[in-house]
Amino acid sequence: MIEEPPSQGPIDEVAVAEYLFKRLGQIGVRSIHGIPGDYNLVAIDYILKSGLSWVGNCNELNAGYAADGYARVNGVGALVTTFGVGELSALNAIAGSYSEYVPVVHIVGYPSRAAQKDRLLLHHTLGDGDYEVFSEMFKPISCAVSRLNDPEEAAALIDNAIRECICQSRPVYIGLPSDMVTKKINANQLKVSPDLSYPPNDPEKEEYVVDAVLECLRKARSPAILVDACAIRHRAVQETHEFISESGIPAFVSPMGKGAIDETLPNYGGVYAGSGSNKGVQECFESADLVISIGAIQSDLNTAGFTYRLPALKCIEFHSYGVKIRHSEHPGVRMNGVLAKLTRKLSSLNRASDFEKTAVQLNELQTTSQLDHPQTASRSPISQAWFWSRLGQWLKPNDIVITESGTSSFGIWETRFPKGVTAISQVLWGSIGYATGACQGATLAAQELGIRRTILFTGDGSLQLAVQELSTMIRNKLNPIIFVLCNDGYTTERLVHGMEATYNDVQEWRYKDLPLTFGGRQDEVLTYRVETEDDVEELFQDEEFGDVDTKKLRFVELVMLWDDAPKVLKKIVKSVERRNA
Amino acid sequence: MIEEPPSQGPIDEVAVAEYLFKRLGQIGVRSIHGIPGDYNLVAIDYILKSGLSWVGNCNELNAGYAADGYARVNGVGALVTTFGVGELSALNAIAGSYSEYVPVVHIVGYPSRAAQKDRLLLHHTLGDGDYEVFSEMFKPISCAVSRLNDPEEAAALIDNAIRECICQSRPVYIGLPSDMVTKKINANQLKVSPDLSYPPNDPEKEEYVVDAVLECLRKARSPAILVDACAIRHRAVQETHEFISESGIPAFVSPMGKGAIDETLPNYGGVYAGSGSNKGVQECFESADLVISIGAIQSDLNTAGFTYRLPALKCIEFHSYGVKIRHSEHPGVRMNGVLAKLTRKLSSLNRASDFEKTAVQLNELQTTSQLDHPQTASRSPISQAWFWSRLGQWLKPNDIVITESGTSSFGIWETRFPKGVTAISQVLWGSIGYATGACQGATLAAQELGIRRTILFTGDGSLQLAVQELSTMIRNKLNPIIFVLCNDGYTTERLVHGMEATYNDVQEWRYKDLPLTFGGRQDEVLTYRVETEDDVEELFQDEEFGDVDTKKLRFVELVMLWDDAPKVLKKIVKSVERRNA
Repeated sequence: MIEEPPSQGPIDEVAVAEYLFKRLGQIGVRSIHGIPGDYNLVAIDYILKSGLSWVGNCNELNAGYAADGYARVNGVGALVTTFGVGELSALNAIAGSYSEYVPVVHIVGYPSRAAQKDRLLLHHTLGDGDYEVFSEMFKPISCAVSRLNDPEEAAALIDNAIRECICQSRPVYIGLPSDMVTKKINANQLKVSPDLSYPPNDPEKEEYVVDAVLECLRKARSPAILVDACAIRHRAVQETHEFISESGIPAFVSPMGKGAIDETLPNYGGVYAGSGSNKGVQECFESADLVISIGAIQSDLNTAGFTYRLPALKCIEFHSYGVKIRHSEHPGVRMNGVLAKLTRKLSSLNRASDFEKTAVQLNELQTTSQLDHPQTASRSPISQAWFWSRLGQWLKPNDIVITESGTSSFGIWETRFPKGVTAISQVLWGSIGYATGACQGATLAAQELGIRRTILFTGDGSLQLAVQELSTMIRNKLNPIIFVLCNDGYTTERLVHGMEATYNDVQEWRYKDLPLTFGGRQDEVLTYRVETEDDVEELFQDEEFGDVDTKKLRFVELVMLWDDAPKVLKKIVKSVERRNA
Repeated sequence: MIEEPPSQGPIDEVAVAEYLFKRLGQIGVRSIHGIPGDYNLVAIDYILKSGLSWVGNCNELNAGYAADGYARVNGVGALVTTFGVGELSALNAIAGSYSEYVPVVHIVGYPSRAAQKDRLLLHHTLGDGDYEVFSEMFKPISCAVSRLNDPEEAAALIDNAIRECICQSRPVYIGLPSDMVTKKINANQLKVSPDLSYPPNDPEKEEYVVDAVLECLRKARSPAILVDACAIRHRAVQETHEFISESGIPAFVSPMGKGAIDETLPNYGGVYAGSGSNKGVQECFESADLVISIGAIQSDLNTAGFTYRLPALKCIEFHSYGVKIRHSEHPGVRMNGVLAKLTRKLSSLNRASDFEKTAVQLNELQTTSQLDHPQTASRSPISQAWFWSRLGQWLKPNDIVITESGTSSFGIWETRFPKGVTAISQVLWGSIGYATGACQGATLAAQELGIRRTILFTGDGSLQLAVQELSTMIRNKLNPIIFVLCNDGYTTERLVHGMEATYNDVQEWRYKDLPLTFGGRQDEVLTYRVETEDDVEELFQDEEFGDVDTKKLRFVELVMLWDDAPKVLKKIVKSVERRNA
């Protein structure tokens, strides 16, 4: 909770909007995404006054995607929309942030309280005087919905929303009536930064769980760790990393967990996704006699169509909301504290040498893996099988890699990351177009944090949904590296149904012309077209293209065959098609 | 209600999806908008099988706008989206159709019933097994929400939804699980076309109301008619037109009613919007001693900031849901029947000569009006004041004219239309970007109906929200005439607040390059840039540009000053700004 401010001294006052944006600044938001509208204009004035930047997206859905991408890199993101038309355009993006546990503060400019009270027939309404109908739609996809209608309550509601946003790692909704923006409230509370730490576990329960886990580990002959999305979303990456490197236990990631593990560790085993695992990984992982699962989201695509083989009797599950050991549940015992204590107590096991032995087996797996030894390039068209494993060697430590729901989000399973790579993808929500919007937000957050490369992989069909955000990237002088996989349409849909159906085609654009059409200057943008694997090799060796220090946006048309797809995707879509029938 | 099908003969069977699309065909839908997704692919197969066309938009929000534009020209429109990500992206467009009374059938592809029943953790869910959460969001913005989970009920639910859609003139939502698509149901009902006529008024009540209205007219010395949006939306244009031309009573339109009246009639008076009326109109209209208001929506922008002066004691209001005579309410007596009977009984008044006298006064008003006599063009930049009245003389009968919420939707108040013009604008909902999407749908419907010119006015900022639908127009060989008002940003927002604020700027694009970048061929597209009034004159005299028979898309960069706006807009924004404070 927020501490009481010091009681002495004169009462400083601050406008409600300034309080809100300063609070956002305190929790690390530097830039606000969104679109101006007549009910939020005065509020936007306070963004600059509060020391933050305004992005100015092309539309609200993309602004929502961008705020989500920004949050995945920065820890939290925010966007401003206008009542009705603006907020509803962003709704799908907010639902995605909710589904995938991404903390986004959504600020909606409302008509004045007087207009609401009088149920005036204003524009952006349904014409029925109902000013609650839209905020109701956001309730199932927000962990707090607060409409600031009373200056006395505004600060408390803002602080509460921010805390819920961060601690639950999900979106919150703040409705800000136009006449509330400038209302003055007590500023003293701003002197104390919000406390966003998780409440600690009950020490006795935590100790109990840690000892139970240690006991399991003591008896295990071949344990394995599986790290999934919620380790990242619920800020347990550091604890997870320490546990993995200290224990030496072979560690795997789910597709949504990619980026949570240092893939250069000797005990890193690869991507486990049931029958969609990296080559050799399924056998190796499923032969473990104890699995420690950290932050699992066992959705269809994350498990290659529910093909996990993990009997409860050999599983320990670590979650943000509790720990489960075999069939014993421990609700309310958060994984973060348990993991930290577990690592500290590992020495009591005296078993490190055993785990090292398992690591030797892993090494063997890695030696035969295609991840580190892709086939050599050819003069043939760029195959998905070749490209994704080759990519791993071109990536650099700390790169941010964004993949779109489609061939790229599955292809990336075959890419071994250097240390510190952040992976962004919507494996659960899967809204096409997301990756382009997210790229704008992620690149901005990266540049603010001094991370030097953000790399987007999207498809030709996918890019079309959100293409105008390229303009926002150019306008904000962002320098992402963008690969557009040009394969004549919705290839993933084709594989599910309608392989040659015209509804899976898209209009063929002159993609490379987009940056200039959107106002990019010749000296701000580099464009490329690669059609063969040799072309890719040449591109990957081009120093200007891969440069970590350039300020230029790089845009690549990467031509692939219309019916080519990562092997795992072909496998998964069969299960999707079966389930649809 | 749908009549019972003939009971004799063998039972023909038809797939649920085919039943749905054939029904849509029967009520006049020829093309379906939308985006493919893995939960709707099999359903889309049935669109072609049912004799309809598939548009294939670039994203769902635009598809929703397009279906709305299509419906405004065609009478009804439809779109297909996929569960979660797709439907929620379209939500703002559906809310707009609800707010503005536009009949759109929204078909959402759902996961199979088995997956829903098992609460599977599928992609496009919130991860909690809830398959009702999204359809609940659509309930406040749909007049029927039906999820087809039972083959026995499917036909009845489809027929009911279609009837509600048309009769209430608002969107409906049909959820179609992937395993229901091919389920066979009785096809006999399809042999009977749906009856979509309004239930007739109670004859005694209708007669009573008509006589009361006639009595008012008999006593009136200077009556006037004001036609608004719902006359169009609730299919009372024909009855309205006959009443106006038979009675000779001076007739005016609200901004949202533009297009409902034949503006070449001698008793057409112009746009009434309180203090935002055409020059001289406010005084003339407000001096009437009896006002017959048809289909009113008295929203802020439609009344120039609630500046109507219409005391209830001199008003008769005709609505779809009832008639109000001064303070006497007659709920359930629909305007359509009343208007038709009123026209038939006009001869009993014996007062036509009086009304003609008023028409003479109107003629005087028209003689001094700027609408028919715009100032001559100059070599100066194109002024809003000049352009919109000049435009009226270039328009042709039966043109479809779409304006975006912004300077164009206010400017058009100053344009006198030739006969039969359809005006499309979102004066109440006001979602920026709508006009571009709507243009795609409206042009398609127009071409299907043999209407030859669809003309879009949008702004540079507005176009950016939905720009990719230009690609859909090109892909579908549509031939709209598109004017992009290039005035360096959100001019309407500037007038409300932040005249020189950078958040009201937009990235400057090379707009003219868009059609080719989006894959248009040189011989399919004509592009222009006009910077002075003389340039506009030249353009308006260019035969190829105005050609009614060309198949080419025409795209005009129309440069205007960043701070210029129609006079009425400047007036209105002052009231908006006041209300926001």
